[in-house]
Amino acid sequence: MYESQTADALAEAAVAGIESGMMVGLGTGRTASRGVIALAERLRHEQLDIRVVCTSHATESLARFHNLPISEFALVERVDFLFDGADEVDPGLRMLKGSGGAMVRERLVAWASERCVYMIDHTKLVDRLGEHKTLPIAVMAFGLASIRAGLRELGLHGVVRRTITGDLFLTDNGNLVIDVALTETTDLEELCASLNDIPGVAGHGLFLFEADEVLIETADGTVERRARK
Amino acid sequence: MYESQTADALAEAAVAGIESGMMVGLGTGRTASRGVIALAERLRHEQLDIRVVCTSHATESLARFHNLPISEFALVERVDFLFDGADEVDPGLRMLKGSGGAMVRERLVAWASERCVYMIDHTKLVDRLGEHKTLPIAVMAFGLASIRAGLRELGLHGVVRRTITGDLFLTDNGNLVIDVALTETTDLEELCASLNDIPGVAGHGLFLFEADEVLIETADGTVERRARK
Repeated sequence: MYESQTADALAEAAVAGIESGMMVGLGTGRTASRGVIALAERLRHEQLDIRVVCTSHATESLARFHNLPISEFALVERVDFLFDGADEVDPGLRMLKGSGGAMVRERLVAWASERCVYMIDHTKLVDRLGEHKTLPIAVMAFGLASIRAGLRELGLHGVVRRTITGDLFLTDNGNLVIDVALTETTDLEELCASLNDIPGVAGHGLFLFEADEVLIETADGTVERRARK
Repeated sequence: MYESQTADALAEAAVAGIESGMMVGLGTGRTASRGVIALAERLRHEQLDIRVVCTSHATESLARFHNLPISEFALVERVDFLFDGADEVDPGLRMLKGSGGAMVRERLVAWASERCVYMIDHTKLVDRLGEHKTLPIAVMAFGLASIRAGLRELGLHGVVRRTITGDLFLTDNGNLVIDVALTETTDLEELCASLNDIPGVAGHGLFLFEADEVLIETADGTVERRARK
């Protein structure tokens, strides 16, 4: 347990392990953004020689605004440390992500990262993934109808995500997103493998093995740390 | 064996199984284009009520030029019949494809197709895939360096494909292509599974299970037919 001594104990805990010389991956979303701000704060007060890579255009804008030293991920082979948020986390530290649509880049940076820390508030803890959220699946627009038909064969029924103005929602990579409901009987590891085998599926929100550690902001503002066994 | 009675026995054999009511997938490349022309020829002489979907912009232009009734694949759930070319075919009808860079769409249409027929000339038959050609891997530009590092860990050393003018080669989906050499010791099924598990790999040229039938243009112009057992 970490005592909350400042405005944002969760964000400070998330960036506490960052050291000089590191290439740091910055996640996307509201919670990850708190980490970006906490990291910028550290850079203002410490001699911390790091570089960062961003998992979305939105995060890159934020990092630029806070004068973080940005590297282009396309040129980066390995990342030392990634912090990011998650939409749901189950007791096995398996996660559902991607309500913001950045999951393809988030997974790629996580895959390239030595250590991945996810930060959530306690309301994101669930007994089973899909309790509150749908599973987003990013697909090439070219394959939309055939992939939806394939998903139906897996028992997955989904809707194509639209923006608030009714336009088709596009990810940073120009993919469409199909949001599907998970049921209590879904075998997540099997589903994960099936999705990886469908051509034209660019990514999805099941992050079953990525988290090395999850930091949880409890109701009283303290931070609980859960590490993968 | 089919006797060559016309200018293009291979192409005629490839489209011979197409019947009214079918949604037909059109492959990409020089050999597949011969099939497109043979199909257009059938449409000019027969009452053949079909629709076609295209695996590349190039094929779509050709189909449009020949007045084939094009459907948008994004709206099509299932394809009845696909014909396409291949760069190498081994004795197990496993194929190497993608020297033209269309393999992501080609695989997606093949996946959605009831029956897939590939047409090659006999010089494309090899004892092992990779004998003459490299394996193309389509990757999201965002992940270029990290994916190359991951491929190196699999023992795969590749070069990023460029156009004749030296620019980076982009697929129809805006991906980069890394061409890697296969060795005699490469386990193709294992490699295929590994590639599917790397986030940011949009596709690759190993088509191990797609061919239901391969039509081979022999040196004397006759057509040999090999079906998957």
